[in-house]
Amino acid sequence: MSLRRVSVIGSGNWGSTIAKIVGNNIKSSRICSRGSYVGFEELVNGRKLTDIINTSHENVKYLPNVKLPENVVADPDVKSVARDADVLIIVMPHQFLNRTLAEMKPVVKPTSYAISLMKGLALSDDHGIKLLTDCIRDVLSIPCAVLMGANLATEVSQENYCEATIGIDNPKMGSELKKLFQTDYFRIVVIKDEVATELCGALKNIVAVAAGVIEGLGYGDNTKAAVIRLGFMEMKSFIYQFFADRHPQEGTFLESCGVADLITTCYGGRNKQMGIALATTNEPLAQLEKERLHGQSAQGPLTAAEVYAMLERKGLLEKYPIFTAVHKLCTRQFDPKNFICCLANHPEHR
Amino acid sequence: MSLRRVSVIGSGNWGSTIAKIVGNNIKSSRICSRGSYVGFEELVNGRKLTDIINTSHENVKYLPNVKLPENVVADPDVKSVARDADVLIIVMPHQFLNRTLAEMKPVVKPTSYAISLMKGLALSDDHGIKLLTDCIRDVLSIPCAVLMGANLATEVSQENYCEATIGIDNPKMGSELKKLFQTDYFRIVVIKDEVATELCGALKNIVAVAAGVIEGLGYGDNTKAAVIRLGFMEMKSFIYQFFADRHPQEGTFLESCGVADLITTCYGGRNKQMGIALATTNEPLAQLEKERLHGQSAQGPLTAAEVYAMLERKGLLEKYPIFTAVHKLCTRQFDPKNFICCLANHPEHR
Repeated sequence: MSLRRVSVIGSGNWGSTIAKIVGNNIKSSRICSRGSYVGFEELVNGRKLTDIINTSHENVKYLPNVKLPENVVADPDVKSVARDADVLIIVMPHQFLNRTLAEMKPVVKPTSYAISLMKGLALSDDHGIKLLTDCIRDVLSIPCAVLMGANLATEVSQENYCEATIGIDNPKMGSELKKLFQTDYFRIVVIKDEVATELCGALKNIVAVAAGVIEGLGYGDNTKAAVIRLGFMEMKSFIYQFFADRHPQEGTFLESCGVADLITTCYGGRNKQMGIALATTNEPLAQLEKERLHGQSAQGPLTAAEVYAMLERKGLLEKYPIFTAVHKLCTRQFDPKNFICCLANHPEHR
Repeated sequence: MSLRRVSVIGSGNWGSTIAKIVGNNIKSSRICSRGSYVGFEELVNGRKLTDIINTSHENVKYLPNVKLPENVVADPDVKSVARDADVLIIVMPHQFLNRTLAEMKPVVKPTSYAISLMKGLALSDDHGIKLLTDCIRDVLSIPCAVLMGANLATEVSQENYCEATIGIDNPKMGSELKKLFQTDYFRIVVIKDEVATELCGALKNIVAVAAGVIEGLGYGDNTKAAVIRLGFMEMKSFIYQFFADRHPQEGTFLESCGVADLITTCYGGRNKQMGIALATTNEPLAQLEKERLHGQSAQGPLTAAEVYAMLERKGLLEKYPIFTAVHKLCTRQFDPKNFICCLANHPEHR
């Protein structure tokens, strides 16, 4: 492969972890001359975070105690990072996505392509929800792959064995991306199904809230497994219902982005934690997030609200009892004790 | 439906739980005149267990504190229970299966059919492993369905919401079985894929041992999710490899018998517990079972041994790194610390 330039847009803990992996792979394989790395500039103890990263090779704020390779250069200017990049790895809080894409647009190379590592959905006026990769494709007019999987950033940064799925329609890009991301401990499966790969990553957070509610209500393993599975079937049904024209594949649900990410999220993480809190208190969600997530928001309730609005508009709420119940619970429209009643006549059991 | 007679062969905690469910369904729907229930006779405090069940309507030994419906009649004579039965529910420790089938054979009605609730495999001389339902089909010459799922007996007996999968090729029998088993809290999905439904129930115990090993070695959620998923893919691959002629279906892996049972077993239960013990001690498996399972044996190591023998004979060990590693670990042929190395080049990642 000729010298190519890879840029990571985002410098949170996941972005930094990925910059470490890609930086090391670039170094050993001479894929490209330089990796760049962007974060919105912040001050840490009076020093610029990018300066700290470029001198100490550590993101002391978002990924402390993990050494970044020296070929990863931090730069607070998104234009300078995006310019000349052949591969754009986009991994940032998705509320900032549109603003960042607008900034990047004038400098992005038309021959480049992107890969999104963001788990979430955007809202569109006409269709209800919009894929984050479609936002990228629409604004930048380049192809966009997606990387999803059971990947808690801290564990990946400590080089614990895990897997991820890359969804990309183009085999040549797929093979380049596998070389960029795969290591001995970070194992990549490349599949063609971009859309279901991405949607699994977003929708599983709704199911995790439901799993937390069941745990909070004191139910055992059988019930939790049933709710996780029924939620999984709603994910699948939702994807086939609204994205059938983009050819989702059954096999995708058994990849890391599907079953593995679902399991990890339903047994740990902040969405499950919010589910437990919703079931065991009467406090509103915003208050629970403030108290228990130090003001960060959980993705599941947001995604549930977006999905609920779309299902309601199409008259499809009854087909999705878990998605519907999670949204109503997050907005305190009903008593968590009635959660199981919502499953009494699940479409899967008819 | 005309009066039909249903018999449960087996009186352990799962058999007793199922006798309760079926007995109640029979009573309310008048499906049949009588449910029978067999256990090998045992004495409890000097009294026959069947006598206790028939007077107190409680299986004080295997399912204490759960009331059985009065139309469930216990009988220690398997011939008397099997004679005239239209539906035979077979749920017993499978080491006793062949002996019991031989006893039943002369009295079984040729128009009857069976359903197996047993999770395990038998050995055959020619093919390596044999389905327990094939043992039943071969000896009794009647059709045999299978019921599997994420069903810890104690939780089901307490009427906690859960799901199960019935695999049966014949739609009429499928619809009768759904009426017999489904309740408000025990939700049934009937599918045609008998073979994958049954095999998932047996093979998942091997994966649970692996999940326990990972936990015992101190790995986090990512690694555990990866190992569970890779094990799941080996289950699928094994089923397609050896039972392709019986048409396993992709969708079966997303049913309760597939993903849900796998999750429950990998997060709880004795196979996972043995995995943890294998990773954290140097003791032989038999010793660990004696100390930690009060002499009961875990199914996973047995199934792993049967599967290993079959894969070895066919020269396929390399295609199944987790199945292979679990067997070698259970027989102490290698150090658990090397477990992750076995996954270094998993066929899924090639």
